[in-house]
Amino acid sequence: MEQKFKNDAITPRDQDFAKWYTDVCKKAELMDYSDVKGFIIYRPYGYAIWEEIRNYLDKKFKETGHENVYMPLVIPESLFNKEKEHVEGFAPETLVANIGGEKKIEDPLIIRPTSEVLFTSFYARIVNSYRDLPKLYNQWCSVVRWEKTTRPFLRGSEFLWQEGHTLHLSEKEAREETLQMLDIYDNLGRDVLAIPFVKGRKSEKEKFAGALETYSIEALMHDKRALQSGTTHYFGQGFTEAFGVKYLDKDGKIKYPYQTSWGVSTRLLGAIIMVHGDDNGLVLPPYVAPIQVVIVPIRYQDEKVKNACEKLLKDLTKLGIRTKLDISDHTPGWKFSEYEMKGVPLRVEIGPRDLATNQITYVKRVNNQKITADLNDFELAVPTLLKEIHQEMYQKALKFLNENIYEVHSYEELKDVVNKGGYAKVCWCGDEECENKVKDDTTATSRCMPFEQDLFEEKCPICGKKAKYVIYFAKAY
Amino acid sequence: MEQKFKNDAITPRDQDFAKWYTDVCKKAELMDYSDVKGFIIYRPYGYAIWEEIRNYLDKKFKETGHENVYMPLVIPESLFNKEKEHVEGFAPETLVANIGGEKKIEDPLIIRPTSEVLFTSFYARIVNSYRDLPKLYNQWCSVVRWEKTTRPFLRGSEFLWQEGHTLHLSEKEAREETLQMLDIYDNLGRDVLAIPFVKGRKSEKEKFAGALETYSIEALMHDKRALQSGTTHYFGQGFTEAFGVKYLDKDGKIKYPYQTSWGVSTRLLGAIIMVHGDDNGLVLPPYVAPIQVVIVPIRYQDEKVKNACEKLLKDLTKLGIRTKLDISDHTPGWKFSEYEMKGVPLRVEIGPRDLATNQITYVKRVNNQKITADLNDFELAVPTLLKEIHQEMYQKALKFLNENIYEVHSYEELKDVVNKGGYAKVCWCGDEECENKVKDDTTATSRCMPFEQDLFEEKCPICGKKAKYVIYFAKAY
Repeated sequence: MEQKFKNDAITPRDQDFAKWYTDVCKKAELMDYSDVKGFIIYRPYGYAIWEEIRNYLDKKFKETGHENVYMPLVIPESLFNKEKEHVEGFAPETLVANIGGEKKIEDPLIIRPTSEVLFTSFYARIVNSYRDLPKLYNQWCSVVRWEKTTRPFLRGSEFLWQEGHTLHLSEKEAREETLQMLDIYDNLGRDVLAIPFVKGRKSEKEKFAGALETYSIEALMHDKRALQSGTTHYFGQGFTEAFGVKYLDKDGKIKYPYQTSWGVSTRLLGAIIMVHGDDNGLVLPPYVAPIQVVIVPIRYQDEKVKNACEKLLKDLTKLGIRTKLDISDHTPGWKFSEYEMKGVPLRVEIGPRDLATNQITYVKRVNNQKITADLNDFELAVPTLLKEIHQEMYQKALKFLNENIYEVHSYEELKDVVNKGGYAKVCWCGDEECENKVKDDTTATSRCMPFEQDLFEEKCPICGKKAKYVIYFAKAY
Repeated sequence: MEQKFKNDAITPRDQDFAKWYTDVCKKAELMDYSDVKGFIIYRPYGYAIWEEIRNYLDKKFKETGHENVYMPLVIPESLFNKEKEHVEGFAPETLVANIGGEKKIEDPLIIRPTSEVLFTSFYARIVNSYRDLPKLYNQWCSVVRWEKTTRPFLRGSEFLWQEGHTLHLSEKEAREETLQMLDIYDNLGRDVLAIPFVKGRKSEKEKFAGALETYSIEALMHDKRALQSGTTHYFGQGFTEAFGVKYLDKDGKIKYPYQTSWGVSTRLLGAIIMVHGDDNGLVLPPYVAPIQVVIVPIRYQDEKVKNACEKLLKDLTKLGIRTKLDISDHTPGWKFSEYEMKGVPLRVEIGPRDLATNQITYVKRVNNQKITADLNDFELAVPTLLKEIHQEMYQKALKFLNENIYEVHSYEELKDVVNKGGYAKVCWCGDEECENKVKDDTTATSRCMPFEQDLFEEKCPICGKKAKYVIYFAKAY
């Protein structure tokens, strides 16, 4: 009897998107739950996607002069308390250790929720002269935030991320760094994840605890809710003054450097799933897919098929394309369904009928398009198809994003848009009260202020005062 | 006035080896201390060495079919207590969190000291059929062990490592895995770190908490003390039975799989420092050196020198060789000293006099050998020299190791050897009492039993009973 196709087990997206999401996370074996709520297990198929993201970003970070370090997992409570706004932002969700080696720890240790204080305290020790600047450090690690409501990849008590922490001689240089890193994240979306972002500056209310300015990239999920996918922060001299990071400048004066931090996390996996996935499961962008090409033999017992499959696997692997040949005893139909569910971008079918004329069939996961082509052309065909798939996925997501941004001219319109889903582009007065009102009325929050500030209304539709900023509101994860 | 050469600040090795070690760690900017005792900061120069080790091993792990995962940072105390021997081994040095989100956590969370229980508990959920085996998982992470006495890289409250955890259908396959991974570690030493290891099986007394068998690689430091540098463990079915990991086999019977784990850590940085370093500082093996070649211009203001330096930097970088050109305003002498201290394997001096005849000078860090060669031959010369340096470093370390292994025939000899430093190769009866006696009398411990068991004495020199195993004793870190 034919084994049931696995993706029958996935709830349709438009029936229950939240259920669809966790179904996909589990069935595609991206993650599993652990024994502690909110702490997930990153399974090989999910972790491999993160590895691809890390490899891409790590290269970009190094090309822009950044160096990797590793800072301690723990922060003494006394140190954590040095920057007031920062501690207020994080204290409610910290995990605190106070037993070490079976003895009470006098100054309890906070498991890092983020490492600004560790970096700044370190910088205070190693920065003395203008010659020591800039410092361009990054670390790859996990952080812990004790969350009440958790969802795989989107909000967890522990997640993987990178955090860059830099010090600069001038405000200008630090501000440029903040924007440079935002661009690197934006390019990651465009070139690797096939995700277009809305990007811009956060409002005062939504910025990071302790930062003077926060910038973000925001992706739009299939259910038309926004997902903050990466942030960069400009701190000015707030931390450096609080921690006494100072240096002797060329002019003989003691000065405080300007600081930034920036990070993306495994939340990006959530974005990939919810931007590209469909009712058959995952749809992975080719450049992060752990398996880029799956070869499904139609009759593997046929010597000619077997040889063609094995040769293709070998040749594609040699080209650096992550390829899998599935020779398990499942039916081809089961395999089609399985790798659809796992979101493999390109399937190659090799059967005796096609092979008779030296043909093979390519099937694109994103749109199910079938292409029959000469077997010998694979060397050009496969990289070209992967590139095409990437472009098609990006364009599809871009179209969806653009179709769901609405310039709103009244408060009713604003509420309609955010309730229906998508971004309300609003000419806003800049007051936090208006953000609070929108949140109370709709649960939507301000996402960011785009760099193109083309005010299309004179008055804030929420309060009627003079409009100052173009800003996006949306319901968000 | 000429700035003082930095390596003046390093204590000579034979004056105070421990002081020399921490001097090198600090001055070469491998690490720094943090605000919490035992938790060190891995600075860029130290972390980059770890990255090279990781890149090499990760490739080997993947080539042998292993997949990376990421498991939670925390283990509930109740789960941790499931495997009795294991918990007894680790409980005294755990860091325990019991406040989360400002509330008491009912089942306190142990910050992972190692992840056997997490992997096994996960395997219990995902392994059902013989088709699910083997499971070949690995993770790169940090672990926490609350240590009383700590030293950079050698023993810390937090360190970076990889831990592989595998499940197998048969005892044979699991045992083979344990030995295969030991070989991968051994090859890392031979091919990358230029460190020869003594390898073999640990005694019952020295094996890992919960393991049936532990194997180790042991390096010999300059002060003739041993450093356990990597271990692999065969668990049999101890954990799988305790955690109820079971599967339906082909024959219709329910069975428990066989388990292994294996790991190396940033301790390897300690081995690199203490095996190769000298009174001028670090000596880094070429294949892990963050800077493999440093170019020191003799008169950079000379246009011809400047052009030659820049071209060489560009060309070597293109060849994938990690190259630095130092154009700072320090004197050449200061730079020689600085990069000697940082252990850069190969220095290239480019000055107007040599350039007149198109010559440049190479200087090997390991033995200070100078080679003058045609500038245009760099493409062949540099990789060849790096390979030579690796070989010279390995042979030097191997000679030192071999000169410090002594077959002992009496207890007096045994004590002499371990007190003087080096390995006492002993034909041992197998009794823990004898190990205890050696430890009480000398502080030395048994290191491992080599695979070649050529008994050269009939009686154990410690107790006079029948000798059963050849084993190494040494004082160790």
